Amino acid sequence: MDTLKPRSGVSGEFLAQMSYESRANIAIERCRKLANFSEDAVGTRRTFLSPSMRDCHREIAGWLAPMGVEVRIDAAGNLRALYRGPDRDAPRLLIGSHLDTVPNAGAFDGILGVVLGVALLESLAGKRLPFAIELLGFSEEEGVRFGAPFIGSRALVGRLDAELLSRTDAKGTTVRQAIEDYGLDPGEIRSAAVTGDELGYLEFHIEQGPVLEEMNRALGVVQTIAGQSRLEFVFAGSTNHAGTTPMNLRRDAMAGAAEWIGAVEREAHRVAELVATVGSLAVKPGAVNVIAGEARATLDVRHGSDESRHAAVETLTGAATDIAVRRRLSVRHSVQLNQPSVAMDPALARQVEEAIRRAGCEPHRMVSGAGHDAMILAEKIPSALIFLRTPGGISHDPAETVRVEDVAKAIEAGSHFLAHLAASSAVQRRTHLA
Amino acid sequence: MDTLKPRSGVSGEFLAQMSYESRANIAIERCRKLANFSEDAVGTRRTFLSPSMRDCHREIAGWLAPMGVEVRIDAAGNLRALYRGPDRDAPRLLIGSHLDTVPNAGAFDGILGVVLGVALLESLAGKRLPFAIELLGFSEEEGVRFGAPFIGSRALVGRLDAELLSRTDAKGTTVRQAIEDYGLDPGEIRSAAVTGDELGYLEFHIEQGPVLEEMNRALGVVQTIAGQSRLEFVFAGSTNHAGTTPMNLRRDAMAGAAEWIGAVEREAHRVAELVATVGSLAVKPGAVNVIAGEARATLDVRHGSDESRHAAVETLTGAATDIAVRRRLSVRHSVQLNQPSVAMDPALARQVEEAIRRAGCEPHRMVSGAGHDAMILAEKIPSALIFLRTPGGISHDPAETVRVEDVAKAIEAGSHFLAHLAASSAVQRRTHLA
Repeated sequence: MDTLKPRSGVSGEFLAQMSYESRANIAIERCRKLANFSEDAVGTRRTFLSPSMRDCHREIAGWLAPMGVEVRIDAAGNLRALYRGPDRDAPRLLIGSHLDTVPNAGAFDGILGVVLGVALLESLAGKRLPFAIELLGFSEEEGVRFGAPFIGSRALVGRLDAELLSRTDAKGTTVRQAIEDYGLDPGEIRSAAVTGDELGYLEFHIEQGPVLEEMNRALGVVQTIAGQSRLEFVFAGSTNHAGTTPMNLRRDAMAGAAEWIGAVEREAHRVAELVATVGSLAVKPGAVNVIAGEARATLDVRHGSDESRHAAVETLTGAATDIAVRRRLSVRHSVQLNQPSVAMDPALARQVEEAIRRAGCEPHRMVSGAGHDAMILAEKIPSALIFLRTPGGISHDPAETVRVEDVAKAIEAGSHFLAHLAASSAVQRRTHLA
Repeated sequence: MDTLKPRSGVSGEFLAQMSYESRANIAIERCRKLANFSEDAVGTRRTFLSPSMRDCHREIAGWLAPMGVEVRIDAAGNLRALYRGPDRDAPRLLIGSHLDTVPNAGAFDGILGVVLGVALLESLAGKRLPFAIELLGFSEEEGVRFGAPFIGSRALVGRLDAELLSRTDAKGTTVRQAIEDYGLDPGEIRSAAVTGDELGYLEFHIEQGPVLEEMNRALGVVQTIAGQSRLEFVFAGSTNHAGTTPMNLRRDAMAGAAEWIGAVEREAHRVAELVATVGSLAVKPGAVNVIAGEARATLDVRHGSDESRHAAVETLTGAATDIAVRRRLSVRHSVQLNQPSVAMDPALARQVEEAIRRAGCEPHRMVSGAGHDAMILAEKIPSALIFLRTPGGISHDPAETVRVEDVAKAIEAGSHFLAHLAASSAVQRRTHLA
């Protein structure tokens, strides 16, 4: 275990009197500051246990020090900081998100959830709650360095296993070696797991989509993280001369794939809340004057209901076959991913919605089309995921941003949530029992 | 001028008595033999003035020697062999095609037209006609080595100009240098041009398409070589997350391009004899879980009538705009090629058709969707292009083949054509005048 020394911070007394808007401005500044800790000279890229991650940890430790909250880094590289409860055995509420980024990242994806955790601790102004709060800054969620996402949160649910530890990055370094190189002990990974005394997990995250903006809502409460299917379809026809082959004698794989892409789009429009995407199409031989003999298309299908998702995949596979038969093409497909949907904790979601209403906002109940750490934590503990409106839906891009007023509402709602949880008889009782 | 020494051949007397079918078998064997002269260890590739082209010239010279016909190589690298007429000033009929190939070529594309010229000379069995016949084996038609096609035939119409001579191959060698390296004199290129005493140009070529096979015809007579438009269309939308962006908020460039590809296909089916092809589609970013922000599609449009072709291009450009507007995409396009159609000589085509009928076949009048040397020669002299059925429409592939009986019919039709031309008053008169 590695305990970082604090560097600098804002005085707790000063922060106790601040408005939510001021706290929001500080949170945004902090996100932008962390974006400077990058592996790349230009743009933000901060992957699993990179040197820039150490700078990031140190910076956060500096913010927490004035509150007497110490940062430790667990064996999976997760930042963990405990705001103590009434006693050692008090139950813990987990708040956090991830600290790693994609290449050429924005400043808020993941990071904001950790920074808002800091802001919520600051808003307590030293007040003791009947439970402890553990701030989590996950080491890895994006899957950039090792091609496998959720390395950090998987450690908390006991799934950072030997297979994952032996995965290698582009330079051939394993996850295990990266952990050792950072000065951590892979043998301690088990002790990073949740213990059973957690009340729940709360994650704030930017929506990374346009829905809240389109609905003119600041905050959304995720009910379900959509299940996801990824498939590949290969249409095969006949490579022929574009000048000498009349239309009625063609077996054009591109035209077949194009017709199917239309069918994919129509099906997704037809079924409520279904999204289906053909994001990649590789055509062979791919010359201006040659009819394509092969077209290789990807398909990404997501829905909150696994049943609806499976039905859509079946429909679209059938459509591909129908189109191929009619056009004298062949088509084969393979399933690359079939990931079930994950429900967030309904009771926790209702409490979060209530807290958002208390902050003067109408929360939007929604399905998350993207995976988040809350999806992993939900395997073991009640989890809640709160989305902040994302201007333009822009994410994974330096143009990624948030509105100050939305961040202020998130902090306010979080404060109400903590207050309500502190007052709830269930927590009182559990604290008492513990 | 380089005069090649003959090596071996079949005796003229023996050949004079052969059936058309036997001649066809010999022609096919000869094509397959020339396919061995390749720059590549495996597969046939024979580009402009490569060492394998010299072997090819030598082999053909060997076939012609028994007839007393000498081969020379003109300054553009074209094989030329004169079967003399009654006197030095007799008009000339040109017969030929090209001797270069694409990489991994079949044995018949181009080559067959030269080999059939040899067979027709052999079928004369030494008989003098009232005109000379010049056999042409063009040095370059495919555009492989220098990215510019028709180098050989352009020399005959005075268009092997300074710009073309200064083009470079992958190694930086210019056309001019390649000519010098082969031992020829680029200063002599002008003397390769037609002189005005040509009666016409006759080219036999495999169809390289499925039309004659589909119609169960052995031979086709090309009326027109289709004009060709090549364009590029770039659809631009918004790169977004495939999971977090609902269908109604997408600006999917791939989906827009796919819809347009469908429109291209429908338009080509709607307009008789139009062919329109989207052979290449490049999508950005091209990831399974990302909505495409850009789709770059090529368009190849051909028709015997330039008016119909231009109308189709206009319709398809309009369709792209309509689709883009409706989908909140942008689209821009650029024209890469706008090549007018070229008519073959109608009188010559009728004579060829008559000769084909005399050989017991019903010729199919057709448009050639691909360019051929006859298209270039037609600028200066009456030209005729005869297609042979291509099994499966397969060409530019080692599987390219011809039927023996079709080749026999081509030789028989060619013989009838020569006999008819010899008897025609026009030639008699012209010979007399000359």
